Amino acid sequence: MSLEKTLDRIDADLPNAIARLQDLLRIKSISTDPAFAGDCQRAAEWLVADLQSIGIDASVRPTPGHPMVVGHMDGPADAPHILFYGHYDVQPVDPLNLWDSDPFDPEVVDGPHGKTIRARGASDDKGQLMTFVEACRAWKEVNGALPCRLTILFEGEEESSSPSLVPFLEENADELRADLALICDTGLFQSKTPAIMTMLRGLVAEEVTIHAATRDLHSGMYGGIAMNPIRVLTRILGGMHDDQGRVTIPHFYDGVPDIDPDIAAQWDALGFDHAQFLGDVGLSVPAGEQDRTPLEMIWSRPTAEINGIWGGYTGAGFKTVLPAEAHAKVSFRLVGDQDPVAIRKNFRDWITAQLPADCTAEFKLSGGAGGSRMVTDHPLFEQTRDALTEEWGQEAAFIGCGGSIPIAGHFKTILGMDALLTGFARDDDNIHSPNEKYDIACFHKGIRSWARMLGKLA
Amino acid sequence: MSLEKTLDRIDADLPNAIARLQDLLRIKSISTDPAFAGDCQRAAEWLVADLQSIGIDASVRPTPGHPMVVGHMDGPADAPHILFYGHYDVQPVDPLNLWDSDPFDPEVVDGPHGKTIRARGASDDKGQLMTFVEACRAWKEVNGALPCRLTILFEGEEESSSPSLVPFLEENADELRADLALICDTGLFQSKTPAIMTMLRGLVAEEVTIHAATRDLHSGMYGGIAMNPIRVLTRILGGMHDDQGRVTIPHFYDGVPDIDPDIAAQWDALGFDHAQFLGDVGLSVPAGEQDRTPLEMIWSRPTAEINGIWGGYTGAGFKTVLPAEAHAKVSFRLVGDQDPVAIRKNFRDWITAQLPADCTAEFKLSGGAGGSRMVTDHPLFEQTRDALTEEWGQEAAFIGCGGSIPIAGHFKTILGMDALLTGFARDDDNIHSPNEKYDIACFHKGIRSWARMLGKLA
Repeated sequence: MSLEKTLDRIDADLPNAIARLQDLLRIKSISTDPAFAGDCQRAAEWLVADLQSIGIDASVRPTPGHPMVVGHMDGPADAPHILFYGHYDVQPVDPLNLWDSDPFDPEVVDGPHGKTIRARGASDDKGQLMTFVEACRAWKEVNGALPCRLTILFEGEEESSSPSLVPFLEENADELRADLALICDTGLFQSKTPAIMTMLRGLVAEEVTIHAATRDLHSGMYGGIAMNPIRVLTRILGGMHDDQGRVTIPHFYDGVPDIDPDIAAQWDALGFDHAQFLGDVGLSVPAGEQDRTPLEMIWSRPTAEINGIWGGYTGAGFKTVLPAEAHAKVSFRLVGDQDPVAIRKNFRDWITAQLPADCTAEFKLSGGAGGSRMVTDHPLFEQTRDALTEEWGQEAAFIGCGGSIPIAGHFKTILGMDALLTGFARDDDNIHSPNEKYDIACFHKGIRSWARMLGKLA
Repeated sequence: MSLEKTLDRIDADLPNAIARLQDLLRIKSISTDPAFAGDCQRAAEWLVADLQSIGIDASVRPTPGHPMVVGHMDGPADAPHILFYGHYDVQPVDPLNLWDSDPFDPEVVDGPHGKTIRARGASDDKGQLMTFVEACRAWKEVNGALPCRLTILFEGEEESSSPSLVPFLEENADELRADLALICDTGLFQSKTPAIMTMLRGLVAEEVTIHAATRDLHSGMYGGIAMNPIRVLTRILGGMHDDQGRVTIPHFYDGVPDIDPDIAAQWDALGFDHAQFLGDVGLSVPAGEQDRTPLEMIWSRPTAEINGIWGGYTGAGFKTVLPAEAHAKVSFRLVGDQDPVAIRKNFRDWITAQLPADCTAEFKLSGGAGGSRMVTDHPLFEQTRDALTEEWGQEAAFIGCGGSIPIAGHFKTILGMDALLTGFARDDDNIHSPNEKYDIACFHKGIRSWARMLGKLA
């Protein structure tokens, strides 16, 4: 089997690969809007046909929502079995007037890093999932067969909270279970360094309502004697961090590990430029725990954030109301072994213990999951890292991720398999925003990266 | 001149007085909605005609908004000159489905304290202003002339922030200036004790916006490193009261007087039932400065209240956003010699001094005025108090008012005259709400109260 010939084939076929991606991008597979359900179906069918053209045994698999695409291809019996995951659905395109061209008429235009494809879904996630498909196509054409057993899973509801995903995984667990999942829905570190995410933060979200009087009161009549629930809410939540940026909820840091020294050394080597990272959004000072590095703050330390707050009169002008209730949405990013159930309970207890007479608190669950750390001792982690390093000409890194990628957790809990997350998006790809784009260089080197990874298996 | 005959006349004429009030209540004089401008004009014309029928030289006086009604009647040269103020405009009637009858078809129905007139404006303020008009009518019919010089001023924009009031007072100052203003737009203390308000709190209102990043951020990417302006806002405003309920803004209590011992004694004698006052709205514990009485909290002590707060995502579900800004509307009720300009400056300085790096604060003025204390040494204060005591069979009181009544301040600053505020509304009159009502007993005894007050002047 020849990697070099495969890479040559990828280079030569790039114009066709771009044309295929453009075909897929023309399909308006917006999953949140029922008006586009037919387009989602068409995108799934397009992918099935494309996978079949490579020789993958693919089919459209109905769900109560938008369909899944599942494909299989046999390989050497002693080779690893990998599952590749991506999603073919895209975000809505509003506000349309901020796009420089039709979001579903993919144009190749000049971008800040060379040629780029501008369209909704170009980066998130059609362009990224096609890097793997194109790598398989070239490998198969040059070498006749893949060096592994392969399962493909493409989802059509990732941008609309994946309502069908867990049931589908549960119902088809035996068919989908593999040795390792590859997930291609992330980006280069600081737009240039290839990276594998090995640490994801979890998320617990709570909505809290403080109730006081049975109705809104006039502050002329009741001001000074009636408890104002906004006063209570601000007092309690205003004390959620101490002056060193630490979260004050009891037992909040239970189960938070320090990072391994070798990971710390890798992170140091990344040369994260927090001044630029913050400067890009008009900030300058890392606001987290003051005894932690900026990368720890966003990757390996837990957070408590008020994502929304409201109460009383919020319209134009003024209304001297003492409202009956005040509300906040609070979320926690979790790491290591922090227990989502305990965090939720501790938060509720902490609020309740601080309530004055006449006030009660009501809580509304908004989902929760712990953080994940990938078990990186599967050989594919080091092999993929080497493949990335070779393709991109710089050391690939194991990095953390400040956000939560639920699919990785589902693969672990439902299918019992670890996930390897890598991808080639850049920070300026405008995902979820107008003028989404995917750089041709990322697409091209992404395909070559997967081919090199397949080469490690050969 | 005979008070007894006048009171008899009032009793005998009550059915006609009710019918007149009903006529006025049928006019839909909603001042905030331009669709009812013609009705406001009609209400002014109805009042002019009614005043003229008593012999008062009245006219409709145009303004850029809804017209004023001004009337004059001569009296003995050595008698005091009084100005009587009320307003003929009413609040909107939404939500209409919560009314038990058409808000502009005034019905006499059974109420919790006997017969009552149910209609928009019955209590606020058409019924109240007609108590004085009916007293003048009876006095004039029985005695041939009033015992004082009288000026009438009825406004048509009180429920829509009185945009034409100050210019009108300024332009007609010489015509309107009197020895004392009578304002009938308040209520009985705890629905039963006749009262004159001699202390009004002022109001300073500010909107504050905390700015952090230049755009909304995703808490997965930036959570932990980027400053969240809601965290800043809650921390600062959450510290606006200490655990004894005192406001912590520096110099906030400068100019706050302790109440005179004789006023304190009067207030003690009122037997204010704060448990019931709070219990009616589901509360139980006075939330103000813990070393003050409940009546001090609502009448003679200043307050700081957050009337509105908002920031981040406040819709259904969850969005893990770190917003670019967070907002609050804060108001202060002022008393004594507290200086609105100093309070505003101290508040702004106090916020600004607590801002962390990367945050700025922006302030928006929403008006401000100091508190007022009436100079009660005009003989009419004691005379009116005696008249009220005689009519209601219980000691009338000089009380405070937690709210602000701007007209009283305007009379002082523009016309140089003090104001005497009394009225006969009950707490359950549902002003500004569905099923507004005015008890026939209040209307009847209100007319008789004014007649007794005129009797003191005779």
